[in-house]
Amino acid sequence: MNYKSLELFFKPKSVAVIGASRNPEKIGYQLLKSLIEVGYNGEIYPVNPKADEILGLKAYPNMSSIKKPIDLAIIAIPAGGVPEVIREAGEIGVKCAIIISGGFKEVGGEGVKLEEEVKSIAKTYGIRIMGPNCIGVYDPHNNMDTLFLPRDRALRPKKGDIAFISQSGAMGVAFLDWMTMENIGLSCFVSYGNKADVDEIDLLEYLMHDEKSKVIAMYVEEITNGRRFIEVARKVSIIKPIVAIKAGRTMEGAKAVSSHTGALAGREDIVEAAFKKAGIIRAYDTHELFDYARALATGRIAQGDRIAIVTDGGGAGVMATDKLTDEKRGVGLKLAELKEETKNELKRCIPQFAIPHNPIDLTGNANPEMYKNVLEIVLKDENVDGIVVITLIHPPMMNEKIVDEVEEVYRKTSKPILVAATGGAPTQRVLRAFQERGIPSYPEVERAVKAMRCLVDRGRYLKKLRGDIH
Amino acid sequence: MNYKSLELFFKPKSVAVIGASRNPEKIGYQLLKSLIEVGYNGEIYPVNPKADEILGLKAYPNMSSIKKPIDLAIIAIPAGGVPEVIREAGEIGVKCAIIISGGFKEVGGEGVKLEEEVKSIAKTYGIRIMGPNCIGVYDPHNNMDTLFLPRDRALRPKKGDIAFISQSGAMGVAFLDWMTMENIGLSCFVSYGNKADVDEIDLLEYLMHDEKSKVIAMYVEEITNGRRFIEVARKVSIIKPIVAIKAGRTMEGAKAVSSHTGALAGREDIVEAAFKKAGIIRAYDTHELFDYARALATGRIAQGDRIAIVTDGGGAGVMATDKLTDEKRGVGLKLAELKEETKNELKRCIPQFAIPHNPIDLTGNANPEMYKNVLEIVLKDENVDGIVVITLIHPPMMNEKIVDEVEEVYRKTSKPILVAATGGAPTQRVLRAFQERGIPSYPEVERAVKAMRCLVDRGRYLKKLRGDIH
Repeated sequence: MNYKSLELFFKPKSVAVIGASRNPEKIGYQLLKSLIEVGYNGEIYPVNPKADEILGLKAYPNMSSIKKPIDLAIIAIPAGGVPEVIREAGEIGVKCAIIISGGFKEVGGEGVKLEEEVKSIAKTYGIRIMGPNCIGVYDPHNNMDTLFLPRDRALRPKKGDIAFISQSGAMGVAFLDWMTMENIGLSCFVSYGNKADVDEIDLLEYLMHDEKSKVIAMYVEEITNGRRFIEVARKVSIIKPIVAIKAGRTMEGAKAVSSHTGALAGREDIVEAAFKKAGIIRAYDTHELFDYARALATGRIAQGDRIAIVTDGGGAGVMATDKLTDEKRGVGLKLAELKEETKNELKRCIPQFAIPHNPIDLTGNANPEMYKNVLEIVLKDENVDGIVVITLIHPPMMNEKIVDEVEEVYRKTSKPILVAATGGAPTQRVLRAFQERGIPSYPEVERAVKAMRCLVDRGRYLKKLRGDIH
Repeated sequence: MNYKSLELFFKPKSVAVIGASRNPEKIGYQLLKSLIEVGYNGEIYPVNPKADEILGLKAYPNMSSIKKPIDLAIIAIPAGGVPEVIREAGEIGVKCAIIISGGFKEVGGEGVKLEEEVKSIAKTYGIRIMGPNCIGVYDPHNNMDTLFLPRDRALRPKKGDIAFISQSGAMGVAFLDWMTMENIGLSCFVSYGNKADVDEIDLLEYLMHDEKSKVIAMYVEEITNGRRFIEVARKVSIIKPIVAIKAGRTMEGAKAVSSHTGALAGREDIVEAAFKKAGIIRAYDTHELFDYARALATGRIAQGDRIAIVTDGGGAGVMATDKLTDEKRGVGLKLAELKEETKNELKRCIPQFAIPHNPIDLTGNANPEMYKNVLEIVLKDENVDGIVVITLIHPPMMNEKIVDEVEEVYRKTSKPILVAATGGAPTQRVLRAFQERGIPSYPEVERAVKAMRCLVDRGRYLKKLRGDIH
């Protein structure tokens, strides 16, 4: 099937909500509310045989009675009724359906049969199915939101350029919420659940063509069609980076996956080899998924592994250096050796007692302008492939102007610059401001260093593809 | 020297602030302000020859003119004037001095000589010196605060039971600020800078006897007297755990230390062996220091390595399992095998379609009461040495009552329970509430799992000391 057939999941001109409800405790109520609150600008048709109106919208007893074209059916009724609804949708020419309902393959037994029935009907009518057992789509660019969780409980990230697809709805929501907290922008989100039809492979293909998505983050527990997955992911990852958490990578984790979704997690060594072949960047711990994704979303890669560290805290500089250069507990990159010329220039703009070598410690006398001057000098140095900038906000002359000064330099270079600072609320404000300007920022120096490693790896990967090195 | 001689740094009946200033841009102003704002309840004597009154307090031209007993002198004047001030302090019987001023050993040359002079004078008069080149003490239990950073820039943690000593003032402040954000309580903080006199060894001895400190966190770049350090730390760590970041552990990091403070970071293999011998728990990344410290501060240890995971998100449970059981990228603990009896009991209180095995997935139908019931059952199981409780807040029946329910169970057991949840502001509120009740909580499942490892290690260490295992 063509990736274009997925477009209606993200920008349908009209949607029918089957199982729409007036009861705020019901999924069919929250779902409708999310669509309204996100400002969906097509037609919405609530379907509920027992209501005339829901949330101010005229309700219909069934889809057939709507008598207008329906691009997308969103289904939130008990599993047993779903096959019939899909058949009705097929009869009136609906092209896509998101089946939110659970009670299919994931519960085993009858559920498996029910899912097969749905698949077969959908195939007959050529309807594309997302789910079942999923939470669907959130696309802030197209004002599309099928998440049945209230916006004040499950925060929605702002518009951005990171696509996120998740096999698990709960993990999806938790990550979206986390993205909001860290002020990371989203291009679109898909929870695809049991993947009766649309799976991660389809979505990767779709997202490859989605211009607003600069990077694809994914949470998966099971890769169904390994060979095809590698083939597609490899093609996609040349165009835009893919970062993935593959949960269930230990024997015990794999067992847990099987009871979570009935899926087979697959052997870790095979997954590892497959991801490598496909050019997928692997995230392990929770924070890594979006730490890496946001660094990669800048489109900047490191042309080599020689990194400079600029800091206003000596200790923080030492910790970043440890993480950077350690092969075992760190990322095994190199501390850039500054050229003599660079050192001489630096001497003129750092405090008198500071020593102009890498990590470059501006000391507690640092101020925003000093950062700008130093960064400009360091960026000219051909021995530097990327910079981790540590901006502790506590020194007396430091203030929020640091964001402007660093941004000014950032705009003039194509080398990667990642920011880090440790601290409480005032620090978090500065970090959010950096993120707002599109400069990735991290609450721990180690996280910035790990993200820099990603940009080095990405650079190596692209070079290898181009045949520069073998 | 006796550890008791350090008491006056934390609870002096009177302090003189030498270099007190009316200029808000000066250290001597902020310092005085901090003392007032923290509610220091002894006598404060600002010393400044050019002022009659500072911040509403009568000022004195010098210490001799105060004519009243002074327990502690806090010195914030240019380095050159410090020896004379120490001599004056000695003459009038001051017992302790914190030298905030920089410009000593850390700048080399003349600074080294100046520091030697100060040491020699202090020795003559028997004055204990903290610093120079430090920010001194913050002790919320004794309303003591010599930090010269405004409270709205460098947030101060609440009262608690974690002591924190830091060689670096800047890292100290950054960590305090971080603790505030994560709602972690502090027993006292010391930045001891160049350690002309008081060093980490003295402080460990002092803190061993400090009842309000249940655990000691430390940031060090250099251990001066290795043999004595091991001896004291070993003695202390039997009584209360010590968690330490030793920065400068790579070759490049060690070089950076040397230009940061002029100190020798020491060979990593020696440090590693020394810490192990001393029973010190090592933290590497920024978050680990207080993640471990707060778990250890509960006083609970795991009697074995068999851990249960209770979750309302299948995916989060899988990720926690991966981290728990992975030897290479995780902590290499065991997923507890629940007894048949436990499983049977669990069946009665988890959702019908949920499977009663570890990780125990309460699914999106979880509610706070279900957590309580499940935890009570799991805690009875002798195969379980500790529990990681994942409380994603997004499922419809989850709410802040989860904190009460978990706490109720927590109070009735001595097994360690650590909480984790991923998400934005609403999640962070719940995590802070857990922390408020003394139940360690973490924003990532992996961080909780790593902290649990600490409690297993601590358990092993104490057992080994008691000769149970060899």
